[in-house]
Amino acid sequence: MSPAERADLVLAGIEIAGTLAFALSGFIEATRKRMDIVGIATVAFVAALGGGTLRDILLDRRPFFWVERPGYVWLILVLTVAGLVLMRARHVEFTGRAMRWPDALGLGLFSVVGTSQALAMQQPLIVAALMGVVTGVFGGVMRDILCNEVPTVFRDHRPYAVCSFAGAWTFIAAQALAAPAWVALSAGIGVAAGWRMLALARDWRVPGWTGR
Amino acid sequence: MSPAERADLVLAGIEIAGTLAFALSGFIEATRKRMDIVGIATVAFVAALGGGTLRDILLDRRPFFWVERPGYVWLILVLTVAGLVLMRARHVEFTGRAMRWPDALGLGLFSVVGTSQALAMQQPLIVAALMGVVTGVFGGVMRDILCNEVPTVFRDHRPYAVCSFAGAWTFIAAQALAAPAWVALSAGIGVAAGWRMLALARDWRVPGWTGR
Amino acid sequence: MSPAERADLVLAGIEIAGTLAFALSGFIEATRKRMDIVGIATVAFVAALGGGTLRDILLDRRPFFWVERPGYVWLILVLTVAGLVLMRARHVEFTGRAMRWPDALGLGLFSVVGTSQALAMQQPLIVAALMGVVTGVFGGVMRDILCNEVPTVFRDHRPYAVCSFAGAWTFIAAQALAAPAWVALSAGIGVAAGWRMLALARDWRVPGWTGR
Repeated sequence: MSPAERADLVLAGIEIAGTLAFALSGFIEATRKRMDIVGIATVAFVAALGGGTLRDILLDRRPFFWVERPGYVWLILVLTVAGLVLMRARHVEFTGRAMRWPDALGLGLFSVVGTSQALAMQQPLIVAALMGVVTGVFGGVMRDILCNEVPTVFRDHRPYAVCSFAGAWTFIAAQALAAPAWVALSAGIGVAAGWRMLALARDWRVPGWTGR
Repeated sequence: MSPAERADLVLAGIEIAGTLAFALSGFIEATRKRMDIVGIATVAFVAALGGGTLRDILLDRRPFFWVERPGYVWLILVLTVAGLVLMRARHVEFTGRAMRWPDALGLGLFSVVGTSQALAMQQPLIVAALMGVVTGVFGGVMRDILCNEVPTVFRDHRPYAVCSFAGAWTFIAAQALAAPAWVALSAGIGVAAGWRMLALARDWRVPGWTGR
Repeated sequence: MSPAERADLVLAGIEIAGTLAFALSGFIEATRKRMDIVGIATVAFVAALGGGTLRDILLDRRPFFWVERPGYVWLILVLTVAGLVLMRARHVEFTGRAMRWPDALGLGLFSVVGTSQALAMQQPLIVAALMGVVTGVFGGVMRDILCNEVPTVFRDHRPYAVCSFAGAWTFIAAQALAAPAWVALSAGIGVAAGWRMLALARDWRVPGWTGR
């Protein structure tokens, strides 16, 4: 296997792990809201595929990535049914903690991929960085809207979207410096995921208006 | 009148009845939320036309069906004003029960039409079925989001989206078996609407996470 | 400076003032919800740029106006950070009252611009008027959805969307009468903004269902 093939394999693995982590976040929130299987499956879909879909609508890209690879749709559908069966049979409880690493890596990957696709379409740099953030973060925003909550990412005070933003700019900078593709990708993913994990470990906060 | 013309007439009738039933569901929910006429009209629009619009955005189809036939926009606008005048003058109360048949038929028709349009654009089968569900169900989802509620269809535990999904697959199967267009259409609409009405009559439930 | 140049300058001034007023409305609502800086910036973006973006998606226009002029994105980003710093340092409180004139003028301008763009794409008149309303009003609708509120414009009972609608039809009528561009623009903006300010001053109400 050549290094390029190996890199592709790693990226595909991160993409699948990240998508599943995002889908699981939707599954968990929907079951907390006592939704039925339709709601749980829809919220899992939207959490996993919504960010990339919104990016593609904004960039006017078709077909969507999940139309090109409908396996993702089937995968989420099967996992939703399986997860529900498991929860009812065994009283398994899913918690988010084990998902932190795949979630952070998925955030990094999606942010960088979204930025890269926007750059390929000659978008301005700030727009490309925002497209990265949309790809990484807006699945979760739409998940929370469907669950009738203020989006977690807007009020969590823990770095999430800012990690995505930083990863996007790291990727942009690396590309501007003519770094090889895999270096730019790794740097972007590493900064986003690394900062996210460090922020969780150290309990860093982003500023907000908490006053009075 | 030829059979084909008669079939077209029946379909047009179902489309109008279904659209009005969906619009009325928006009207009712918006008045319950004590919205003003702007909110009531907007929620009625979104409930009636939102699912098809979202499908067209996802499939990148233009013009929207309500841009091709702006009569629908006028119709909903006039009915909103008329409904409000009626409610204020006579204390008429609109209830959803009388709307069950037009709503179920509309669900069936919109699901099948959405699926058919996606198939015509060579989408994968699972994507085509989902586009049917989006067409039939997401007007109601957006209606509930605008009203700041968890979408009914996600937590109702009564079959609605699954009827739409079943109707979509029935249509896909009938087309794959080279059934004539009107047979495939009727089968899809019949399965979706029939299942929906049967489920309401027998109080069937879809599984969900209700535990502990 | 020719009269045409002077008119362009006035319009550019209104556009900037209106965009800032809309962004500030998002800033205020997000801080009230005690969001962090990510939420505040996102809600400010969506309030300011969401209406025009939704219009462009519905009309399938690309690039978005804020992609053509990314200065708007930077401006909102910088102002969000500056506003937050100011609030934390000085306990400044932003209130909506001072924003009434720029907000009303922005509403008028965006409504007329949205209508004009839809007309240029040969949309039916009712659709063009609705596109004006979407441009003027739906940034605020999306702002409120992100903040998990029933959109203010749907239940405020004070004319806002109807002013936008009236401005759009004024512009359409003026164009149909072959009025010069600047006359049609001023008439549309004047009707929308003027009615809005008058309605606030006189405490006019739009009807709704407030009964029982």
